[in-house]
Amino acid sequence: MLKPLGDRIVIELIEAEEKTSSGIVLPDSAKEKPQEGKVVAVGTGRTLENGQRVELEVKEGDKIIFSKYAGTEVKYEGNEYLILRESDILAIVG
Amino acid sequence: MLKPLGDRIVIELIEAEEKTSSGIVLPDSAKEKPQEGKVVAVGTGRTLENGQRVELEVKEGDKIIFSKYAGTEVKYEGNEYLILRESDILAIVG
Amino acid sequence: MLKPLGDRIVIELIEAEEKTSSGIVLPDSAKEKPQEGKVVAVGTGRTLENGQRVELEVKEGDKIIFSKYAGTEVKYEGNEYLILRESDILAIVG
Amino acid sequence: MLKPLGDRIVIELIEAEEKTSSGIVLPDSAKEKPQEGKVVAVGTGRTLENGQRVELEVKEGDKIIFSKYAGTEVKYEGNEYLILRESDILAIVG
Amino acid sequence: MLKPLGDRIVIELIEAEEKTSSGIVLPDSAKEKPQEGKVVAVGTGRTLENGQRVELEVKEGDKIIFSKYAGTEVKYEGNEYLILRESDILAIVG
Amino acid sequence: MLKPLGDRIVIELIEAEEKTSSGIVLPDSAKEKPQEGKVVAVGTGRTLENGQRVELEVKEGDKIIFSKYAGTEVKYEGNEYLILRESDILAIVG
Amino acid sequence: MLKPLGDRIVIELIEAEEKTSSGIVLPDSAKEKPQEGKVVAVGTGRTLENGQRVELEVKEGDKIIFSKYAGTEVKYEGNEYLILRESDILAIVG
Repeated sequence: MLKPLGDRIVIELIEAEEKTSSGIVLPDSAKEKPQEGKVVAVGTGRTLENGQRVELEVKEGDKIIFSKYAGTEVKYEGNEYLILRESDILAIVG
Repeated sequence: MLKPLGDRIVIELIEAEEKTSSGIVLPDSAKEKPQEGKVVAVGTGRTLENGQRVELEVKEGDKIIFSKYAGTEVKYEGNEYLILRESDILAIVG
Repeated sequence: MLKPLGDRIVIELIEAEEKTSSGIVLPDSAKEKPQEGKVVAVGTGRTLENGQRVELEVKEGDKIIFSKYAGTEVKYEGNEYLILRESDILAIVG
Repeated sequence: MLKPLGDRIVIELIEAEEKTSSGIVLPDSAKEKPQEGKVVAVGTGRTLENGQRVELEVKEGDKIIFSKYAGTEVKYEGNEYLILRESDILAIVG
Repeated sequence: MLKPLGDRIVIELIEAEEKTSSGIVLPDSAKEKPQEGKVVAVGTGRTLENGQRVELEVKEGDKIIFSKYAGTEVKYEGNEYLILRESDILAIVG
Repeated sequence: MLKPLGDRIVIELIEAEEKTSSGIVLPDSAKEKPQEGKVVAVGTGRTLENGQRVELEVKEGDKIIFSKYAGTEVKYEGNEYLILRESDILAIVG
Repeated sequence: MLKPLGDRIVIELIEAEEKTSSGIVLPDSAKEKPQEGKVVAVGTGRTLENGQRVELEVKEGDKIIFSKYAGTEVKYEGNEYLILRESDILAIVG
């Protein structure tokens, strides 16, 4: 299990569709960099300067859209994850 | 539905007029990058260092003017949106 | 109507004199970039980290001097405006 | 009248001596950029994050030394002024 | 013993597998820069602007994933360590 | 008199020795840029975000070591001074 | 005596071993830049925005490891010192 720190979040990427609208299967390099993910684990939140913790707005299972090129790719037990800060998350898709 | 986080806002672009004042239809490349949008969804607001949330000044349905080149373009269910931070919004048109 | 957000201000430019002291009318390119404007609308103010709003020092109708190159030009209902932050304003001319 | 905002200050430049110690009058380009000025008007002060205003340490009439290249030159009713922030002022000459 | 200061953490690197999945032993240059470590010592925590200390979320013995290129390599009594700030730690592996 | 503002300090430079240990008088260009000075005047201190003033740690007459290239050279009544911020001072020599 | 200001610390460098493990004496240029030092004097601490002073974690006599290239070299009464900020210190060796 990966337990992210502070305002960090672990997500699994949701791959972009591998077929174009005309049904042609795209080779790997022609696919768009995915910007969607599913939240796998969330940190304990950000600590404010008054000592208070602010809980994250996203929770495990949320489907999210995040900023391109954000985060760090991590391989764990054969799976690939992305670890983001909450500020890299643009919106929850729900 | 897209639910933006914190001080983020989802807008739909309002396209610049496709006709010049003399009635000539402009080709796509000659149109100005739109700087106007309609607010589709707003986040829960910014958290201050004392833990207090500041609600956004804009609300769903507001027509706004925003800084050129601000925000991230997002495609969702076939539609295009722009996700901005409230600080990228210059004024409400009302 | 344009309603600026936070510590933003909408101004109309006050054009620099189009005649030189010797009375010669200058072509457009020879005129100095105007640095004076009239305040058309003001935002609700800046929010401090303790949640308090600080009202702007300028008000509608004030004639101001602002930093060169500051702000964003905006066209609205055929008129041109500049949207500034209060920190771009150097002084009120009174 | 110019009324500077916040922690800004309007000064008149005090020109460097136009004669060298040996009495030779210097051409304009050989004079040092002046770093001294007389305070003509002061702003209402800086607002701290707790909402408190901090009055400026300089007052009208003070002769000051300021950082080279600081401030913005402004022409008003035929006179030239420099608008500085208080942090650009190094010392009061008294 | 190394006693890190503030929000710093001393870790031992956990080397990436030296065999590929097919069992081939990799030469040193072909191995990935390790991004995993074991916490050896932790600092007393970060001091907030209100004077409060925030204890670190990681503790001695934790296995962690950290940002590539973060930290400073240190040799002590013949062993190599990396000294990181807590903000360089992405997640605890547990 | 020069009265520095806020956390600023006026110092007189203490020239590096003009003789080498073997007694040779050095030409001006071979001398090291002095890093020592004597405090001539101190400001009223830095204002914290809670409105409190923090008095400076150095006082008139202190001999100090400061960061190379810090501060602004100022000529006043024929003498040369350097105006520094307290943060440019490394240590008091006492 | 050197009395460092605020969160500054005066250290004496501890030279890296001049012999390699095989007993060969290294010429000066082949030695690594030392990263270890002994604390000679400590400042009164950092002032927080609430006016509180935070005492330093290191004390006179501590042996420390510091960031490469940090600090300012200072010569005083024939000896060489390095003046660091506490944030440049990685760990106490004890």
